[in-house]
Amino acid sequence: MRIGFIGLGHMGAGMAGNLLAAGHEVLVFNRSPGKADHLVAQGAVRAATIREACQADAVFSMVADDQAATSLVEGAEGILATLPAGATHISSSTISVDLSRRLADRHRTLGQTYLASPVFGRPEAAAAAKLFVVCAGDADVFEKAKPLLDAIGQHTFYVGRTPETANAIKLGGNFLICSVMEALGESMALVSKLGVPPDTFLEILTSSLFDAPIYHTYGGLIARREFRPARFAARLGTKDIRLLLEAAGEARVPMPLASLIHDRQLRILATEGDDIDWSALGGLAFQDAGIADPRA
Amino acid sequence: MRIGFIGLGHMGAGMAGNLLAAGHEVLVFNRSPGKADHLVAQGAVRAATIREACQADAVFSMVADDQAATSLVEGAEGILATLPAGATHISSSTISVDLSRRLADRHRTLGQTYLASPVFGRPEAAAAAKLFVVCAGDADVFEKAKPLLDAIGQHTFYVGRTPETANAIKLGGNFLICSVMEALGESMALVSKLGVPPDTFLEILTSSLFDAPIYHTYGGLIARREFRPARFAARLGTKDIRLLLEAAGEARVPMPLASLIHDRQLRILATEGDDIDWSALGGLAFQDAGIADPRA
Amino acid sequence: MRIGFIGLGHMGAGMAGNLLAAGHEVLVFNRSPGKADHLVAQGAVRAATIREACQADAVFSMVADDQAATSLVEGAEGILATLPAGATHISSSTISVDLSRRLADRHRTLGQTYLASPVFGRPEAAAAAKLFVVCAGDADVFEKAKPLLDAIGQHTFYVGRTPETANAIKLGGNFLICSVMEALGESMALVSKLGVPPDTFLEILTSSLFDAPIYHTYGGLIARREFRPARFAARLGTKDIRLLLEAAGEARVPMPLASLIHDRQLRILATEGDDIDWSALGGLAFQDAGIADPRA
Amino acid sequence: MRIGFIGLGHMGAGMAGNLLAAGHEVLVFNRSPGKADHLVAQGAVRAATIREACQADAVFSMVADDQAATSLVEGAEGILATLPAGATHISSSTISVDLSRRLADRHRTLGQTYLASPVFGRPEAAAAAKLFVVCAGDADVFEKAKPLLDAIGQHTFYVGRTPETANAIKLGGNFLICSVMEALGESMALVSKLGVPPDTFLEILTSSLFDAPIYHTYGGLIARREFRPARFAARLGTKDIRLLLEAAGEARVPMPLASLIHDRQLRILATEGDDIDWSALGGLAFQDAGIADPRA
Repeated sequence: MRIGFIGLGHMGAGMAGNLLAAGHEVLVFNRSPGKADHLVAQGAVRAATIREACQADAVFSMVADDQAATSLVEGAEGILATLPAGATHISSSTISVDLSRRLADRHRTLGQTYLASPVFGRPEAAAAAKLFVVCAGDADVFEKAKPLLDAIGQHTFYVGRTPETANAIKLGGNFLICSVMEALGESMALVSKLGVPPDTFLEILTSSLFDAPIYHTYGGLIARREFRPARFAARLGTKDIRLLLEAAGEARVPMPLASLIHDRQLRILATEGDDIDWSALGGLAFQDAGIADPRA
Repeated sequence: MRIGFIGLGHMGAGMAGNLLAAGHEVLVFNRSPGKADHLVAQGAVRAATIREACQADAVFSMVADDQAATSLVEGAEGILATLPAGATHISSSTISVDLSRRLADRHRTLGQTYLASPVFGRPEAAAAAKLFVVCAGDADVFEKAKPLLDAIGQHTFYVGRTPETANAIKLGGNFLICSVMEALGESMALVSKLGVPPDTFLEILTSSLFDAPIYHTYGGLIARREFRPARFAARLGTKDIRLLLEAAGEARVPMPLASLIHDRQLRILATEGDDIDWSALGGLAFQDAGIADPRA
Repeated sequence: MRIGFIGLGHMGAGMAGNLLAAGHEVLVFNRSPGKADHLVAQGAVRAATIREACQADAVFSMVADDQAATSLVEGAEGILATLPAGATHISSSTISVDLSRRLADRHRTLGQTYLASPVFGRPEAAAAAKLFVVCAGDADVFEKAKPLLDAIGQHTFYVGRTPETANAIKLGGNFLICSVMEALGESMALVSKLGVPPDTFLEILTSSLFDAPIYHTYGGLIARREFRPARFAARLGTKDIRLLLEAAGEARVPMPLASLIHDRQLRILATEGDDIDWSALGGLAFQDAGIADPRA
Repeated sequence: MRIGFIGLGHMGAGMAGNLLAAGHEVLVFNRSPGKADHLVAQGAVRAATIREACQADAVFSMVADDQAATSLVEGAEGILATLPAGATHISSSTISVDLSRRLADRHRTLGQTYLASPVFGRPEAAAAAKLFVVCAGDADVFEKAKPLLDAIGQHTFYVGRTPETANAIKLGGNFLICSVMEALGESMALVSKLGVPPDTFLEILTSSLFDAPIYHTYGGLIARREFRPARFAARLGTKDIRLLLEAAGEARVPMPLASLIHDRQLRILATEGDDIDWSALGGLAFQDAGIADPRA
């Protein structure tokens, strides 16, 4: 298939590379064009504009937030105006439920099709085609796109015909990660103040009831309070919980734990700045308990 | 070794059975004596009193809470008064950090030894010798007791010489379980109200980043809102978080997520009564979102 | 002065009436025109359109939320397009900090002036010219408008040249009211369950340290759990805290108590519907404690 | 009447002085005896022991916490052992609901009578006989003691025959004060970050809906972030909320706002130490928003 790919950051570059590796023709576009060089060297076609990238059966978009996603779709040279009727926009960005719903409506009006298809996984997983892909939209559109999604991840979950539900699931998943970080932070601060090294506590957890990647990865960062450099920026993690709470507010679903997390994330941004990993959430409990930072 | 075992509830019965199976002589005692019958039939010796159960190299205690644990140790016929000098009290009950610290002091004063050795796992795990055992106390005392601990669990973690830290770890672990239940409840309520069945969401989680027993077990109960009959009573789960918060308060460790959980647990006790599983915590978010109970 | 007044609900009708009583010529407009009849009978001029109401030295707007406020200002027949250069838009609606900021910019661009001038007080206070008026905007514009603001309230506070700060103060004030309701609800539920009638507790509070109107008014409603009919709808109170949290999020100011309140407000909307007073916030603690409603 | 008074700290000294001024014979006792000198100079009788202070119709106790209160009543020379049958113990300390309940039982068993009679007000109010006194216990015992209570305060509230309810009311009142401090802190941090000086915001509040002493007093301290020296130590304020939460836990009354406050109080103790006023609670929101301390 002929595929456009817009947004070649840490995640998008890996995803586009795997589409290429799967034998598709891939038209790559990025606002700062240098990001495309590596992919072009591997056989991708450089698109000079969004319009060029949209001359395809399907176009992926993978950018950081609602604002960036909106800037891709709007205007005379945006995705909405230039994607051919019948072609599919596969939006993999972690965007709001509300924006995804509006995009779905507008593509439908224009005779285009739309899949919300956010992914779980860090850049390394994107590079290794090990993402978990969650997809929602019309079933027949999904069926046609499935080989593409399978090419970028280790498993694709189809969750029904309402696109924005896939975005809600993505936001819900990130919330679950944050809740793990908060719970680990609080409990590690307690046992630490009582004399148990955090990594001893973590080893017990991960070799018993909590043997999941999330606990290993984030537990280690929090036990060592190793929050720089940022791998997933606190600013983006905060944005995700904000989007979750907006969706929850609109749907009238109280989420007190999500609110607790969001307030602590705001505190990190206000006191530590943007240049810190989102796992810094798990470090606040140590601060609040007056435990000195071993790395300070 | 000659072992006393006091407290033959759902957990203790399995643990005592496994000590017996490992070839030890086991003196069993329970306040309501019928609970011992099954074990006696398997070769355990019935102890008519705590004093009788304490005529051993080591005595395990496994009861529900601080009050029950205190009633075992105090008085002229209690463990403290009747355990021989040099013998070891292995306390596996989930008790407070404070009580454990005081027990350690008193045993030391009396020339007895003490290990705090709480366990992770449900009754089925206790029966199958699949518990995770966390132990703290003097290293040489632990070394002698290790075969006993290995006989009741799949793994024994030694966490140092300060007994009450093992209790803090146990309470911390239960807190982590509760935080998973709360996070699952909130996120399932949201996706559910947006049209995604909770078990679809759960399947995505457990086949990707959250593939740990805790998510499978509790996620299923919460997705189905299946909280009765109680397997681990809300009353006991609430008690554990209360003990955690007491330890945190004394150590001056703010734990806002633990506080959030505790308040929601109190609400369950006040509105649903004691006869409900602690996983009902994960059902509150559905209630608060006005989602009807599928089982009502 | 010649004054337009747009939005003749419970609050606006009283405010417009007091401007009339103060001797001003008042052009009144409301989407549903019947609301103007009473004022016209008192001497107001009926404006058939927003444009007509804007043929004035200043135009007040007083509507329920951002959406309504936006609908007044936008379009070829809206306030922005039809207000004469040099005339002043006095926005008394409780709107978002962000919308107020944007309105200020756009009026400035069009050569019009803008004052954010939200008010504190219930409809009875509006009718009696007993409102507290908070105003921000250019100092000379404020000076000219001051007689108008004094005509609708018992006191006018000028808080500086940045209009949206007045909106933040209004939202902050409503948050303080909500925090009183939550604190009263929780403490009344506790003393009530211990046997002290809530109104006895309230009398002690209001005759000692908490002798402020807010405690008298809301304390009484909560003690009696008298939440219907709504005097200020839960929906609007929830909107205000949402706007506060949005401003806080943008400014990176964690407000955990505001978040707690917002989640409880969402719960009221989800479980009780919109037709309830915002003071129902103070009733949740009774529910959560399993205390039967005396009015049920 | 002949009155014993035990506990001559900042509060007790003023209270004892007013009993003396009202014409009573007052036997004064304090652990560190120098505190009695001033009162003895005014005509009080120095009691060398608790036993001596208890040779009276009624004995007041006014100490800092449960531990101190317990040390006064226990032992062969304590209040329980030495107060004559028929005499009354008037406990004005801010102690736990549970301890008050147990004291009531024990005094009853010994043929003594007991009134729980905590007070609202700072040391200056104690000195000026301007306290608000809350009293519970048998009605006839209260009637006899009423002149004493009236002598120390500006108003006495009798709340029924169950002593510990008076303690719950006292704790509830302190919780309401804390909730005001938290709400002021959060909202001041927000408006401050948007450019409004906190004292401008406070002036609007206190001259409109929030014209109560609490808002004036604590609002000023928080606006100036003036938390040292401590007038009421954070340690004591934290203890009060802990006691409130213990009573709430036992009664199964969820109090999420009280929990939020308690966690923030623990944070103050852990990071600022004990030597700070409890109003420092209102300073945390500024810290979390990254607003520099004007006094630093």
